[in-house]
Amino acid sequence: MTAAKRVRLDPEVRREQLLQLGVEMLATRTLDELSIDLLSEEAGISRGLLFHYFKNKQEFHRAVVQRAAANLIERTEPDRALDPMPRLMLSLEHYIDYVIANYRGYIALVRGAASGDAALREIFDQTRDALTLRITAHLAAFGARDTPAVRLLARGWLAMAEEVVLAWVPDPHISKEELLRILAAALPALLATSHG
Amino acid sequence: MTAAKRVRLDPEVRREQLLQLGVEMLATRTLDELSIDLLSEEAGISRGLLFHYFKNKQEFHRAVVQRAAANLIERTEPDRALDPMPRLMLSLEHYIDYVIANYRGYIALVRGAASGDAALREIFDQTRDALTLRITAHLAAFGARDTPAVRLLARGWLAMAEEVVLAWVPDPHISKEELLRILAAALPALLATSHG
Repeated sequence: MTAAKRVRLDPEVRREQLLQLGVEMLATRTLDELSIDLLSEEAGISRGLLFHYFKNKQEFHRAVVQRAAANLIERTEPDRALDPMPRLMLSLEHYIDYVIANYRGYIALVRGAASGDAALREIFDQTRDALTLRITAHLAAFGARDTPAVRLLARGWLAMAEEVVLAWVPDPHISKEELLRILAAALPALLATSHG
Repeated sequence: MTAAKRVRLDPEVRREQLLQLGVEMLATRTLDELSIDLLSEEAGISRGLLFHYFKNKQEFHRAVVQRAAANLIERTEPDRALDPMPRLMLSLEHYIDYVIANYRGYIALVRGAASGDAALREIFDQTRDALTLRITAHLAAFGARDTPAVRLLARGWLAMAEEVVLAWVPDPHISKEELLRILAAALPALLATSHG
């Protein structure tokens, strides 16, 4: 380690850097593989100093997962300047790109490798709630009223998109364009069933 | 314990009884709560004797989950004597009834409380694969060809049904009839998007 790397940083800035590093490391690892030892090695600082920023491994994992969830929500933010269908397609494309870039960490989160921890489960549930609320906020664009059935369908569409993209990434039998098209078409098709 | 209860049973029959008891106990418990101590107490036999039937807690859990998954597949078996839509609705109704009756254990399984164990994850994945294959086997009835896009949509519909039913059971803002109707209508609506 060079002296240049050992520059003293503001603790908030340092914690933020470590968190960002944790999120990057999680992209290609499961939570179990994201140990304090590995973070310490990658960050080039001692375990002791790490515990100055994160009380323990659990707190570090929670902070990393919270940040990863916030990133996902931010990157898939719909662009209100676009018409409903292109808006949905662009948001979906960002979601697919996110899952491709963060596959291992994301599959571990969604499939619940971390779910022994109630605080982590809470983060996943809140993320799904936030995404469901966002979809319902855009539903008027698809001519759907905000009813309990529509909310259930919006939540179901999210679970469907998650499952389909996770199955597609390692085994892409259709093009990304077709994947985008069927997932985007699925939302208005599902919403239309609530009128019946 | 009475002498009458201590009748010597064929080991296969006894193991089967314990397994069935485990499945019943799981209905209202998470896997973590399904301990060998509790099974021993409920079955009225010693821990030592239990380990004669199941090598350890992990093997017991795997056997119980495997059996619960087999029960789910069996109870939701489509009735080929029915037309496509009533066939789908009846199968779905059996699924909803199963989730209502086994809510705590089922949510723990699906949401992955047990997923630290790769063998358990394997059982969930195989169950989902089996259900997806069964849907694709019935797709012709809905006028859909068996294509990669259709398989992805069938898998996605399953994930959707799972999520929607799990969200509905504790918080039923719509009637069971409406739930059934929107989930059943969702499958052909989704499949239709694969033609586009």
